[in-house]
Amino acid sequence: MAYDSCWLSSKVGLANFEVRGETPITETINDELNQKTELVDAKKFIFSTFENLSDAEKSIFDSFEIKDEGYVIKDTGVAVYVVGMQDKGVLYGMFHLLRLLAQKLELVGIELVENPYNDIRMLNHWDNMDEKDHMGSVERGYAGNSIFFENCAIVKDKRRIKDYARLLASIGINSVSINNVNVHALESKLITKELLPEVAEIAEIFRKYGVTLFLSVNYASPITLAGMDTSDPLDENVKAWWKKQLAEVYDFIPDFGGVVVKADSEGRPGPFTYGRTHADGANMLAEALAPYGGLVFWRCFVYNCQQDWRDRKTDRARAAYDHFMPLDGTFLDNVVLQIKNGPIDFQVREPLSPLLGGMTSTNQILEFQVTQEYLGHSKDACFIIPQWKEYFDFDTYAKGSGSTINKIANGSLYGRQHSGVVAVANIGNDANWTGHKLAQANFYGYGRLIWNPSLTAEEIATEWIQLTFGHEGKVLEIVKNVLLDSWPTYEKYTAPLSVGFMVQPHLHYGVNIDGYEYSKWGTYHFADCNGVGVDRTKVTGTGYTHQYFEPNIALYENIETCPDELLLFFHFAPYTHILQSGKTLIQHIYDTHFEGVIDVENFIKKWDKLEGLIDVESFTNVKDRLHLQLANAKEWRDQINTYFYRKSGIADLHGRKIY
Amino acid sequence: MAYDSCWLSSKVGLANFEVRGETPITETINDELNQKTELVDAKKFIFSTFENLSDAEKSIFDSFEIKDEGYVIKDTGVAVYVVGMQDKGVLYGMFHLLRLLAQKLELVGIELVENPYNDIRMLNHWDNMDEKDHMGSVERGYAGNSIFFENCAIVKDKRRIKDYARLLASIGINSVSINNVNVHALESKLITKELLPEVAEIAEIFRKYGVTLFLSVNYASPITLAGMDTSDPLDENVKAWWKKQLAEVYDFIPDFGGVVVKADSEGRPGPFTYGRTHADGANMLAEALAPYGGLVFWRCFVYNCQQDWRDRKTDRARAAYDHFMPLDGTFLDNVVLQIKNGPIDFQVREPLSPLLGGMTSTNQILEFQVTQEYLGHSKDACFIIPQWKEYFDFDTYAKGSGSTINKIANGSLYGRQHSGVVAVANIGNDANWTGHKLAQANFYGYGRLIWNPSLTAEEIATEWIQLTFGHEGKVLEIVKNVLLDSWPTYEKYTAPLSVGFMVQPHLHYGVNIDGYEYSKWGTYHFADCNGVGVDRTKVTGTGYTHQYFEPNIALYENIETCPDELLLFFHFAPYTHILQSGKTLIQHIYDTHFEGVIDVENFIKKWDKLEGLIDVESFTNVKDRLHLQLANAKEWRDQINTYFYRKSGIADLHGRKIY
Repeated sequence: MAYDSCWLSSKVGLANFEVRGETPITETINDELNQKTELVDAKKFIFSTFENLSDAEKSIFDSFEIKDEGYVIKDTGVAVYVVGMQDKGVLYGMFHLLRLLAQKLELVGIELVENPYNDIRMLNHWDNMDEKDHMGSVERGYAGNSIFFENCAIVKDKRRIKDYARLLASIGINSVSINNVNVHALESKLITKELLPEVAEIAEIFRKYGVTLFLSVNYASPITLAGMDTSDPLDENVKAWWKKQLAEVYDFIPDFGGVVVKADSEGRPGPFTYGRTHADGANMLAEALAPYGGLVFWRCFVYNCQQDWRDRKTDRARAAYDHFMPLDGTFLDNVVLQIKNGPIDFQVREPLSPLLGGMTSTNQILEFQVTQEYLGHSKDACFIIPQWKEYFDFDTYAKGSGSTINKIANGSLYGRQHSGVVAVANIGNDANWTGHKLAQANFYGYGRLIWNPSLTAEEIATEWIQLTFGHEGKVLEIVKNVLLDSWPTYEKYTAPLSVGFMVQPHLHYGVNIDGYEYSKWGTYHFADCNGVGVDRTKVTGTGYTHQYFEPNIALYENIETCPDELLLFFHFAPYTHILQSGKTLIQHIYDTHFEGVIDVENFIKKWDKLEGLIDVESFTNVKDRLHLQLANAKEWRDQINTYFYRKSGIADLHGRKIY
Repeated sequence: MAYDSCWLSSKVGLANFEVRGETPITETINDELNQKTELVDAKKFIFSTFENLSDAEKSIFDSFEIKDEGYVIKDTGVAVYVVGMQDKGVLYGMFHLLRLLAQKLELVGIELVENPYNDIRMLNHWDNMDEKDHMGSVERGYAGNSIFFENCAIVKDKRRIKDYARLLASIGINSVSINNVNVHALESKLITKELLPEVAEIAEIFRKYGVTLFLSVNYASPITLAGMDTSDPLDENVKAWWKKQLAEVYDFIPDFGGVVVKADSEGRPGPFTYGRTHADGANMLAEALAPYGGLVFWRCFVYNCQQDWRDRKTDRARAAYDHFMPLDGTFLDNVVLQIKNGPIDFQVREPLSPLLGGMTSTNQILEFQVTQEYLGHSKDACFIIPQWKEYFDFDTYAKGSGSTINKIANGSLYGRQHSGVVAVANIGNDANWTGHKLAQANFYGYGRLIWNPSLTAEEIATEWIQLTFGHEGKVLEIVKNVLLDSWPTYEKYTAPLSVGFMVQPHLHYGVNIDGYEYSKWGTYHFADCNGVGVDRTKVTGTGYTHQYFEPNIALYENIETCPDELLLFFHFAPYTHILQSGKTLIQHIYDTHFEGVIDVENFIKKWDKLEGLIDVESFTNVKDRLHLQLANAKEWRDQINTYFYRKSGIADLHGRKIY
């Protein structure tokens, strides 16, 4: 392979092992173990489902609570066993074992039980078949083109898809959708006979790694594919067409996972056209999928993207909640609402979407974005795991104290059936998969974190660094330091205190403070000579604060208690406002923006010490990008500081250079 | 023809006429007169060069001072004579006569002498052959695609070019360049055998209408066309190549006018690459053209387009003067420096370029822009003639009082040989040539004004309206009113007081106040909480004011004497600054922006009264665009007012709606 094996590059494997059973997945386990060349022969290793154990063995493993996709790794003295309820669990256990080997951790006497915290652990690809799409072949992709599509067709050579499936399984991802939620003309045909034979080939590759295939569908397909004159979800012909068409998908792919739908969102077609609700739209698809156990992931990213900037009453942050809360309880059981972590759009800092926990009687899946649309485009380093950790731990108080996002995502808070986490992938056909070498850690960490949200960001970083760069202590220290500081650093030099969206329009990389200020997109900061921020309080603002539960309402409503880092999301604050940190708002802006650049300069200094300690390609890849990041950070610093100095007329206390 | 005949649509012609001589141009005169169908038979009309008059006739016309391209129209009692020194003069006289007929003006006893005020009366087309160019096939064109090129080739059907040549001759244009000054790969080949046969066909069409053809050339042609490794103007092989190549052009087009060159400007190649001066570069081409009488138009639009916005010392306004003044007197006689009217770039209001009049010993041609790059893209009405009138009348004091731009453009101030005016055309293959019907008046007026700068804007508007829409008094009143108010209106609702460039980057239509504020383009406004504008004074600013002559230096240097309309071009002024009008700066901004929108609303009300009085197509064309203009004006009003209210914190005295 000319491309990177990422965290699976270790050649350390087992000399003496036994894999029980004969399924596509046990075949995968055998393949994986057989390709290792540096063999540990101290022990015997047995890989088996519980069912394939002898009665004597069963009695040893009986007491462990192993769930569907969970596993036990246990040294019985006779052998080290990797036991799952399903072959998929065994596969995950094997990757866990290989990880331990690569990290040179002790296996003697090992005993651990792993069950995934979330049932659905998914990635969405925003990959286009249609090259004419102006976003290129991966929308918001910064690591080359699609690994699934090229030249308006599915790739002929599918070896890289297999390697990708292997990466997914190694971090516990069990579901994937392969085409953009903005479904264009060609991708609409993925559910038709014209393309299904090849889609089925991809599904088969994924199946061997325990990954279920989903497709994004075009809500207007009855019109665009079948030439009908409507896509009305209550129209009997439309219903019949979807039943027939999705049945055809199952003819080719018996374990097809279902569909992802972006409807009535940013210009995409949907049920609104026909005066129907999102529930009407989603349930119609759900009925067609139900006989096969298929799911509908219905995205809640619905807002008015033709807003007039003069209209101070409309608040994009409110939109998802306002649209979907009234529909709570009206969705069929195999509909899952897909909700972005924040109410706006994957900014460096946002509060949690109040829809998470708001709905009690509807399946929900939490959506993250691994691809760095607003977080530096794989040019700037930004290790996102600490952000997701904060989000997972956020207490919504939806059912009293302890109602964390964690428990909402995994369905346990309200006892929902289909639950979990999904994210927009950051991989492409670049040799290192993610453009920025360090962005591999986001991909790796996403899988690891949603499997086990109690892992710390530091633990995840350590795993990835050791698997990727080996065991040199200095390497671990430096890379961990850069990774763990990178999100706070990115936050420092970009839009301050969660006000968000001071980016280049459309591109979303680089600073443009007023870029969206007079636009139709609903993302404003309202900076004037007195202050900056969006008043989302009930008393004087848009009332968004009241989409939360108490005591969060009171916390956010009051400018004195609102956490500093969320201040400008909830309040219009004067430049002279004293933060909880004791600084004025304006001084905070200056300080953080000067600091952010110094941080990046320090990253570069630290990284330079790695020369010769890690492979040249990775060293150079990150070094080059850190220099791009430095230029970006300086531009942010100077434009933000100049902008706010010109607006406020208040000088920096420390007399640093502002233009 | 499916397209508009513009101001030549009148069918009124002569029953009884005689055209003397047999040249391509007299053929054109015959053709033109023969196609008329509503014939005036009261008189006999004789069209002749002076040379072709009988001795008796000559004695009548001997006393008139007729210059090269001038003519006399005189009713001798026997006949009405149109007499020129050249057949071209007779052609211009014929179009003058037809104009008088169409305007129903009295011919009995007529006696007038017309000599063009400017020798060179030129249009530049920024037309691309290369469709891949992202600007479309006419850079800054808003009236469809090129009439010269299509599908990466010269148009096969050249009938429209003939109709265009007719339009040109009818307003006295005698020179035209047909390809973009940004010369791409394909257009570079226009001077080669591959394309010259077809270019020669175009030249022949133009020749019959007295129009000389020029081409824009790529300074790097020795490299891109000939595979040489340099374009150094002092390299003997480079010189030899140009001589050979331009000789080839003359083989095909014996009266080829010469070349237009944009070098070392906005990324175009030029002599700077080789450490040579603009004089070195221009003279090298001039030497190659001299044997054939060809000219080099060398554009002075040279500035640093990679400026750092933090750099307050570099001033784009200074650039042309700083670059070219030291070279005054070093250019060969057939080099003509082409100088934009303003020091920045065709804004709605700029001071005159100080290079005009600054150089005493170099041929200069004044460059206007008919295409409305910054003036509303043929969506907004903007009759530019009043602006050009002001520019022509501006007194530079270069040789004492009375040293107007007029006299610099036509060469009389310093007795220069090759002089005149050039402009970027606004026509394309739209049915009405100019997109906005009223934009025809800019094209028409450009030709008329540079022929005779003493014409008033109102006289020119009246001519165009009567020729285009006939003689209904109400039509004349309304259209004239809209035309004459349109530039002041456009100025009102766009960037205030000549600060300029608050437009959408690249596009240059619509408001984006900070769109260029943190860019590399050198076009900043520096608005902060105290004021706005660019300090270009000698004492505290960039020193640009001192590129003028006294008393203009003193006039501009002093904020109290600087004309209001140029205030923010020369000064950073506090919002509380009292203008000569008695208003504060901030109140002026508010007032003009509210007024601008009301003006456009009034245009619409007035225009609606024309329904049924003019042709439906023109009525609807303008009506639709006035509504686009209204939306644009409102967006400008609200963004500008909101921006400056947020910056200044000073409320509108009249409490009008600001967001």
